[in-house]
Amino acid sequence: MKSKFQVAALLTDFGLDDQYVGTMKGIIVSLAPHVTIVDISHGVSPQNINEGAFLLWAAFRYFPRGTIFVAIVDPGVGTSRKIICAEGEGYIFLAPDNGLLKFVLGEVHASKIISVENKRLFLPQVSQTFHGRDIFAPVCAHLANGVSLAKLGKEVDPETRPEYFLIFNCSKDNKLKGSIVYTDHFGNIVTNICLKNLSLKATSLEMKLSSDKTIRGFSRTYERAPGKDPFMIIGSTGLLEVSLQNGNAAKRLRARIGDSVTLVRRRE
Amino acid sequence: MKSKFQVAALLTDFGLDDQYVGTMKGIIVSLAPHVTIVDISHGVSPQNINEGAFLLWAAFRYFPRGTIFVAIVDPGVGTSRKIICAEGEGYIFLAPDNGLLKFVLGEVHASKIISVENKRLFLPQVSQTFHGRDIFAPVCAHLANGVSLAKLGKEVDPETRPEYFLIFNCSKDNKLKGSIVYTDHFGNIVTNICLKNLSLKATSLEMKLSSDKTIRGFSRTYERAPGKDPFMIIGSTGLLEVSLQNGNAAKRLRARIGDSVTLVRRRE
Amino acid sequence: MKSKFQVAALLTDFGLDDQYVGTMKGIIVSLAPHVTIVDISHGVSPQNINEGAFLLWAAFRYFPRGTIFVAIVDPGVGTSRKIICAEGEGYIFLAPDNGLLKFVLGEVHASKIISVENKRLFLPQVSQTFHGRDIFAPVCAHLANGVSLAKLGKEVDPETRPEYFLIFNCSKDNKLKGSIVYTDHFGNIVTNICLKNLSLKATSLEMKLSSDKTIRGFSRTYERAPGKDPFMIIGSTGLLEVSLQNGNAAKRLRARIGDSVTLVRRRE
Repeated sequence: MKSKFQVAALLTDFGLDDQYVGTMKGIIVSLAPHVTIVDISHGVSPQNINEGAFLLWAAFRYFPRGTIFVAIVDPGVGTSRKIICAEGEGYIFLAPDNGLLKFVLGEVHASKIISVENKRLFLPQVSQTFHGRDIFAPVCAHLANGVSLAKLGKEVDPETRPEYFLIFNCSKDNKLKGSIVYTDHFGNIVTNICLKNLSLKATSLEMKLSSDKTIRGFSRTYERAPGKDPFMIIGSTGLLEVSLQNGNAAKRLRARIGDSVTLVRRRE
Repeated sequence: MKSKFQVAALLTDFGLDDQYVGTMKGIIVSLAPHVTIVDISHGVSPQNINEGAFLLWAAFRYFPRGTIFVAIVDPGVGTSRKIICAEGEGYIFLAPDNGLLKFVLGEVHASKIISVENKRLFLPQVSQTFHGRDIFAPVCAHLANGVSLAKLGKEVDPETRPEYFLIFNCSKDNKLKGSIVYTDHFGNIVTNICLKNLSLKATSLEMKLSSDKTIRGFSRTYERAPGKDPFMIIGSTGLLEVSLQNGNAAKRLRARIGDSVTLVRRRE
Repeated sequence: MKSKFQVAALLTDFGLDDQYVGTMKGIIVSLAPHVTIVDISHGVSPQNINEGAFLLWAAFRYFPRGTIFVAIVDPGVGTSRKIICAEGEGYIFLAPDNGLLKFVLGEVHASKIISVENKRLFLPQVSQTFHGRDIFAPVCAHLANGVSLAKLGKEVDPETRPEYFLIFNCSKDNKLKGSIVYTDHFGNIVTNICLKNLSLKATSLEMKLSSDKTIRGFSRTYERAPGKDPFMIIGSTGLLEVSLQNGNAAKRLRARIGDSVTLVRRRE
């Protein structure tokens, strides 16, 4: 009766201090005790959908086929916003239909997107303020227990549009305009610029931040970074990042998610 | 040999930065590798028994029968304060006898409360400062392994008294006096007032805080809240809360656990 | 095919807000779904090898034989620094060869230390910035799946030297010089002084901090501590600590890891 979906990966903005995440796990363990629960992060800034969308995109590919991703950053909880369930490439994604899945759906071809509406799969009492516990957790458990997507509700054309956020291409004037998509615990500043298929050599570039600061150095590793200034580095997601050795680049440069960055050819 | 108790749900004020919680899990995994361990929270404010008591109350009902709750907020560790083990309605609760179980015992009928004293179920060396590792974790594992409650120690009449903290009833002057029992990660202010069986309509009420601030608005969802002011909302535990859209109500209103609140009929 | 190593215990400085730890778990669950994953801590201060070394030392002995410890505090990631895998006394330790294992290797006799170099056991693409995901997690999973240590690489004489950090012995002038090795979530200040085999009675001692503050009181439990001043106590690791009742001793005394402390006989 078990489905092939036996891993539940959780991403929320609930934090870990309150009982919210534990409560969701209590429900999953109650209904589907065999499921392996893994936390991606519960430290998304409150209600920051873009941040959650980035973290989910950065993490999902390292989970096994057969993972149900339960992603909740949900300022519209209790309103008429839909909850969607997308299946594709061996994964299931459960999330509010508010853009949280936009980057993932830009990369995974969803063969089906369902609007989750079957109340018999929810907790008997559904609050207006905590669908993580009342809807997401039990639906996740039922999917693991073999309930098919078709039982959840009807196929829909969601509000969430796939977004291909990677910037590969220069404009005519040889500028590459991107933006900051994340800043991490170490202060690394993550941009949406991917140099993979780029003819430009990273070492011949400089990056201008919206604060007018310019980053010139480039390093392949944190430790071999040149000097005491922030430098560019290819981060673990393949994206161009800005780091500071033994320091916090995001704080030093006052970088914020959404700030624009421009990559230009350095004048030698 | 396994008991029916195969889930261990942990609640402490240990935080997650130190090795304490990991160490407890190491012991449980050593002695009872089959047990499913779930964290409720380790972010209770240091030594704040009331906060821990609330979180446990808010979470426990979403865990399956067969869960052992290990709750530790324990300023008296190493003194003569007892450790109690309460069984009731298919759950086991292990906690210091300092009030941490008061709200849970106000709701769950404990068929038996034991004073945990059998040293053969503890680690061979018991420190004066970390009973989570030396007593709670191994006792939890032994219970999962089929050791009966009777083996732990004798039945006692604990210091901890059941507390029914929900406020349902108005005083004669139509005032409902309650207090703040929790403030969460989002800044939601949780009171002990439950409007469920109340004849008053929430929308005809206003709430006075001890700071003399008055909350007038009421919303059923976070997103549809009226304007930029803090508003009342029925939270996910069924309790009356105060929230602020896209903001932190607790910080804005300088609300603290224990502050009194008064609900009065609004003059229209 | 499974090895006897079925527990993976993780210690990093990655924090829990980013996707890094979740990503590592995704890899482990992908390759070795049967493994039990336990977090020791991900709250090591960024790049603080000494702090990580202490936490690992304090925790490891409470895990079962058959545990693979994956410890990552790795400022040199992507450089030529080695990754080592030490086996001893039924445990496996995987870590960068930068001193992170020094205290553990001072206590566990490693029968074998391998330099981890077999790229067929890594992810197909290895980044320069996140070996936790690309090397440590898959190697841990392969070890659980029965790959032998010999397959990982050659035996080496590591840079990491075993360190016996416990101070037991007085100098001739009856002074015991030690240092602060950790400060925890409660503000407890942990020193490297172990009074176990010491002829001196703890109550006849006083401790001088590098800030010139002197600690005179001693208590066996937190609650029975004398008065409102910081006091000495034997902590849960067996080390001499300084605590403050209902307060944060580390903040009050501005104690920092690495500060020296001196224990002297009190003049009565």
